[in-house]
Amino acid sequence: MFKKILIANRGEIALRVIRTCKEMGIKTVAVYSTADKDSLHVRFADEAVCIGPPQSKFSYLSIPNIISAAEITNADAIHPGYGFLSENAEFSKICAEYGIKFIGADPEMINQMGDKATAKATMKKAGVPTIPGSDGLVDTIKDGLVIAKEMGYPVILKATAGGGGKGMRIVKDDAGFKKAWDDAKQEAGASFGNDGLYLEKFIEEPRHIEIQIVGDKNGRACHLSERDCSIQRRHQKLVEETPSPIITDELREAMGKAAIAGAEAIGYEGAGTIEFLVDKHKNFYFMEMNTRIQVEHPITEEVTNFDLIKEQIKVAAGETISGQNYFPTLFAMECRINAEDPRNGFRPSPGKITNLNLPGGHGVRVDSHVYAGYTIPPYYDSMIAKLIVSGQSREEVLVRMKRALEEFVIEGIKTTIPFHIKLMEDEKFKSGQFTTKFLEDFDFSDL
Amino acid sequence: MFKKILIANRGEIALRVIRTCKEMGIKTVAVYSTADKDSLHVRFADEAVCIGPPQSKFSYLSIPNIISAAEITNADAIHPGYGFLSENAEFSKICAEYGIKFIGADPEMINQMGDKATAKATMKKAGVPTIPGSDGLVDTIKDGLVIAKEMGYPVILKATAGGGGKGMRIVKDDAGFKKAWDDAKQEAGASFGNDGLYLEKFIEEPRHIEIQIVGDKNGRACHLSERDCSIQRRHQKLVEETPSPIITDELREAMGKAAIAGAEAIGYEGAGTIEFLVDKHKNFYFMEMNTRIQVEHPITEEVTNFDLIKEQIKVAAGETISGQNYFPTLFAMECRINAEDPRNGFRPSPGKITNLNLPGGHGVRVDSHVYAGYTIPPYYDSMIAKLIVSGQSREEVLVRMKRALEEFVIEGIKTTIPFHIKLMEDEKFKSGQFTTKFLEDFDFSDL
Repeated sequence: MFKKILIANRGEIALRVIRTCKEMGIKTVAVYSTADKDSLHVRFADEAVCIGPPQSKFSYLSIPNIISAAEITNADAIHPGYGFLSENAEFSKICAEYGIKFIGADPEMINQMGDKATAKATMKKAGVPTIPGSDGLVDTIKDGLVIAKEMGYPVILKATAGGGGKGMRIVKDDAGFKKAWDDAKQEAGASFGNDGLYLEKFIEEPRHIEIQIVGDKNGRACHLSERDCSIQRRHQKLVEETPSPIITDELREAMGKAAIAGAEAIGYEGAGTIEFLVDKHKNFYFMEMNTRIQVEHPITEEVTNFDLIKEQIKVAAGETISGQNYFPTLFAMECRINAEDPRNGFRPSPGKITNLNLPGGHGVRVDSHVYAGYTIPPYYDSMIAKLIVSGQSREEVLVRMKRALEEFVIEGIKTTIPFHIKLMEDEKFKSGQFTTKFLEDFDFSDL
Repeated sequence: MFKKILIANRGEIALRVIRTCKEMGIKTVAVYSTADKDSLHVRFADEAVCIGPPQSKFSYLSIPNIISAAEITNADAIHPGYGFLSENAEFSKICAEYGIKFIGADPEMINQMGDKATAKATMKKAGVPTIPGSDGLVDTIKDGLVIAKEMGYPVILKATAGGGGKGMRIVKDDAGFKKAWDDAKQEAGASFGNDGLYLEKFIEEPRHIEIQIVGDKNGRACHLSERDCSIQRRHQKLVEETPSPIITDELREAMGKAAIAGAEAIGYEGAGTIEFLVDKHKNFYFMEMNTRIQVEHPITEEVTNFDLIKEQIKVAAGETISGQNYFPTLFAMECRINAEDPRNGFRPSPGKITNLNLPGGHGVRVDSHVYAGYTIPPYYDSMIAKLIVSGQSREEVLVRMKRALEEFVIEGIKTTIPFHIKLMEDEKFKSGQFTTKFLEDFDFSDL
C-alpha cells in the first residue's frame, strides 16, 4: 500500500481524499495556491506545499510544480480528484515517468475516452449502445430517408457547422422528412455559410443516468449501480440521486452489464463512470466515460456503504476486486451548494462566510472545506459544499433534504440553497418524472 | 397525526426532535430559558416560547410554565426528550389532564419502572433474568452458604449500611465463605455501626448492554438490537457502540426476547430501553428500564436506518408496529462531546465557542445545537455534541471516529475530544475486551 499520497486538487475533494487516506493510515500531502492557504484541505493534510499563485495555470494545472511537490515530500502516489489534471494524459504519463503512481487512468485510456469519436467507436465495438447516426454528412434526401428508416424515428437533422439550435430539425416520420431537410439546409446555409447536414437518432425525454464502475489490474470490472443526474442547468449538474426514479431492475441490469462490457473492453483500471442518455422507452445510449472520481460519487457511497476513494486507492495499489456488483439498499440525493446567486443567472458570489451552520442529524452528510470566517476565493469552481441526504424512500429523502437545506445557514455570500429548497417543493421534481430539460422551464425569479 | 409538538427540552435533543417533526410535516414549538435564547433549537422551531430564567427548576422543570406554553401555542403533543421531565410521572399525568399527548410513558409505567425494587420484581415475574440475591439480610453463615450455593459462585457479601466498598467481600467458593463473612461483618460493624450483611450474585467482568425496544398501544413490542455502553466514568456513559463487540447472535436473540417479554408484560407503549449487565459467561441480568429516548439512540438509527423519534411519534399517535425486530446492518459508535476538561477531572468548561469545525464525510453524523460564536451556558448538562460514526466493520468505525475527532475543532472552551482520541488509540479498547471498570484504570494525565 502507498505510504504517502499527494492530492493534486483543492477544496472539498482534496479534503475528501485526505479523510479516506487518514482512515487507511496513509500520510497525505496537500498542495495549494496562495489563494487557498486557509482552506481546510491544507489544515488537515499531514504536509502542505504551496504550488503557486491563484491562477490555476500556474498552480493546480502546473505539472512541474505538482511533480516537484511530490518529489520533495517523497509522495509515492498522486490522487488528482476531479477537474484540473484528473483527465490529463500528459500528467498521467509524467507521473509514471517519475515513478509516482497516478491514482487514475493510464494515458492511453484517458486519450481513448477523452476523444468523443474514439470513445463512441470503442464502446460501440464493445456492444455498448451508442446514439445511432449517419457516418458523417448525408448527401441527399434519399440517403437521409434510408438512414432514418434504419435508425427508427424520431430522428434529428443537425447542421455540421451548427450551434445554438440553428439548422436543427426533429423529424417524426418519412412524410415530414423533405420539409425538415429543406428548412434545415436553408437555415444552416444562411447561418453558417455551410449547409452540410448529418442525422442522429432523436432521444425523446432524455434522462442523464450514469453507471459507476470499478476495474482492476486484471481487467475485471464491477458496477455500483446508477446515479440519475438529469437535473442540470446548461449541462452543469446541480442535483443527483440514486436510485434513478425511472429505473427498473431490468434496466439497471442491462445498463450495468453494458458499462462493465465497456470497461472490460478497454481493460479499464480504477474508478470510472459511464454516462448514458436514457429515452422515454428506456433505451439507453452511451454518451461518454469519465476516467476519474466524480463530484456526485457520495450518493453511491451512501446507498452501498462503499468508500469509493478507498476502492480507487486499493485498485491503484494493485488489489483486485471480487467482481461482485453493488446495489442500492437506500435512497440518496446530493445538492451542490454553490457560491452563486440563483436569482441572478447563477452569477458567482465569492467572499467571506460570516456565519455558518451545517445541517446534521440522521441521514445527513456534508462534504465541505469551508467554515465560519472562511473567504471563498474568486478563482475557482464555485461549489463550496455537497449536501448528501439518505433515507429509506425517495419521499423520505425529499423531506429530509428540504429540512437539511433549511438548516444550512451560510451568511455573507449568495448560495444555491434557495434554488434547492424550491426544487424540493416542486411537484414535477417530486414526482420523479422529469428530463434533462427540466430546468429550462424552471422559474428562478421567486426564490 | 399530531399537528404541533412542543419540545420540553433544550440543546441537541430538542433540535433532534425538531428535525424529525419537520420531516413529518408537524409544526414545532421550542421552549427556552433566558440562557438559551441563542440556541439552534430556538432558531429552527416554528415557534419558540421563553419559559423562565436559567435555573431549570424555574424553566425546563417547571410543569406550569411548560403546560402554559403548550396551551398558548395550541400544541397537541409534548416530546420531553431525555432528562428534565422525561420520566416524571406527575408531568405525564398533567399532560393527559390537559388533553396534550405526552410522547413518553404513562404515569403508572414511569412509577413502576422508576422504583428500582418494583421494576426488578416486575421484570423477574415476566421471566427477565435479574441479579440473584438474598431476600434482605442473611442471618447466619449457614444460611449464607445455602443461598450462595443456590445462586452459584462467585457471590458478593455487602453491608446493608454500606458504601464506598466498605464491608464488601467477593466470595469464590464455599471454602472462602467463612473468612469473608467474618471480615465483612467486622468491617461493616466498625465502619457503619451496623454489621448486617446481604448477598448478591457477583457479576464478573460486567458489561453494560442495553436493548432498544418499541411498544405500541396493542401491547406488542419489537426490539432494535443492542447498544454497548460499557465505557463509563462514574456511571456516566461516554462512548456507546453497536453491535456490542462481545455479543453473539444467540445472546442478542436471548436478550431481545427477554426485553420484549419485559416490555410486553407491562404493556409498554413507546420507545424504551432495557439495560442489562452481561457477565463474562454471557449471562445477562436486568438493571433498569428507561421509559424515554436515550442520548445514545442515534447509533441504533445508523445501523438500522430507522428514525427512532419518528417511531416514538407514530406510536404515540396510535400507529401500531409490525412486531418485526431490527438487526444491525453496519457498525456504529457515538462519542459524547462534552464541554469539560478531561485533564482536570472532567470539570465543566462553559464559555464561548470562538472557532468551530464540524467533521463531515462518509459515515459521519453530528447532532449538535452549537455553532461558531455560541456561548455554552453554565447551567445545564455539559454535552454539546454527539459524534456518531458508522462503517462496515468495527475497525473501520474506529479509524473513522479518530479521523472525525481530529477534524472536530472547537476553540474557546475545553472538550472531551482529546480523551476520545486517546481512547480510539487504546489497544484494550480497540480489542473490544473491556468492562464497565475500564476507565477506572485509564490515564487521563497525558491527553
